[in-house]
Amino acid sequence: MLKEKKVRESSLYKVRAVSSSTIRRLPVYLRLLDSLTRDDLKFVSSKQLSEKTGYTAEQIRKDLSRFGTFGTRGAGYDTEALRNEILKIIGLHKKIAVIVVGVGHLGTALLRYNVNKTPYTNVVAAFDTSPEVVGKRILDVEVLPAHKMEEIVKKHDVKLAILTVPSKNAQVAVDQVIQSGVQVIFNFAPTWVQVPEGVVVHNADISVELQSLIYYATTKEKEEYASTI
Amino acid sequence: MLKEKKVRESSLYKVRAVSSSTIRRLPVYLRLLDSLTRDDLKFVSSKQLSEKTGYTAEQIRKDLSRFGTFGTRGAGYDTEALRNEILKIIGLHKKIAVIVVGVGHLGTALLRYNVNKTPYTNVVAAFDTSPEVVGKRILDVEVLPAHKMEEIVKKHDVKLAILTVPSKNAQVAVDQVIQSGVQVIFNFAPTWVQVPEGVVVHNADISVELQSLIYYATTKEKEEYASTI
Repeated sequence: MLKEKKVRESSLYKVRAVSSSTIRRLPVYLRLLDSLTRDDLKFVSSKQLSEKTGYTAEQIRKDLSRFGTFGTRGAGYDTEALRNEILKIIGLHKKIAVIVVGVGHLGTALLRYNVNKTPYTNVVAAFDTSPEVVGKRILDVEVLPAHKMEEIVKKHDVKLAILTVPSKNAQVAVDQVIQSGVQVIFNFAPTWVQVPEGVVVHNADISVELQSLIYYATTKEKEEYASTI
Repeated sequence: MLKEKKVRESSLYKVRAVSSSTIRRLPVYLRLLDSLTRDDLKFVSSKQLSEKTGYTAEQIRKDLSRFGTFGTRGAGYDTEALRNEILKIIGLHKKIAVIVVGVGHLGTALLRYNVNKTPYTNVVAAFDTSPEVVGKRILDVEVLPAHKMEEIVKKHDVKLAILTVPSKNAQVAVDQVIQSGVQVIFNFAPTWVQVPEGVVVHNADISVELQSLIYYATTKEKEEYASTI
């Protein structure tokens, strides 16, 4: 059981020899560069990037050097060029086709507020098994029955599935998503799923984030405890 | 604008001299130790922890040594003792009182599937401004009008607020949460909020996670590109 978990967790890290933490930082750089290009700032140093992201300048230079040489000694990075490079590195230079599987409260919320508002994703369809939901539209996205999934995935070359089904349906939904041809899954169901080699599953683990925050929320009470260890 | 962002981002890192990445790993260790204690495994080595989490044994030893000495050379860590220590370190050894602010689709989904099912949080109330939602119950949690917030926070010593309001209402809601006495906020609204010194805001940035996944979803197409840089 644990062995399987391990394989699934680490599958995310195997795709290329770039660490997952580097890959998590790239969208943060991108958000900052988006804002700098809007402000018409032509060049930015790793020191400035550091001040604005909280990562060290060394970390930033190391991250970016893994993908090529973007900086000019003295002048810093060309903001627009670096932004375009990061778009290409992540794979955001053209829209990626996405499906949402499971249109309950969470699926609806993601369709309304997040997934549909990023300029990088194109949600081509949502899927559900409930007759009360199938046929509806959330903003522009039509909710289709699950048996249409393979057809839609082939038609739009869907690369990514966002899974927002209840835990008890997660494995069945994942199997169907993979069957339909999607290899990368963003799983919001609070459960582990089994996938074959080569499929990437990332679990959006809200409870891990919540627990990290509880660390901060209980700091005062722990001061006393901390002084005893 | 960016300066303010920086202050807010780094506020999470200042509370104690423990890095936020260490704090993010603790819940992962905890989940594993939960499973090991259920399996009645008495001792675990940092090497085994490493195999099962994907973090290096060195990283794990370094993380745990920051809080005291738990391991015995040769025998490894006492599973149950280490689990209890991590519970105390995070602050999970007693339930923390939490409120959910904003009972739209996302707030409802979190109340139903996540927040209410962790053994570490006690959601004492949810809040909304819409008369259609106020007065309802999501599972056991009552939805109250916003003006009741301060009373509830004082009564239950609420330490953490989960913010699931639309972006346009986020700042007003954050101000009210802080006014009511809560200092730690888990913000799901896809926007930045301003908070005074000492308040911790963690943004659940789904779009950052999504972009990291797009990196993997577009790997094949980038192979060619990668060979040119």
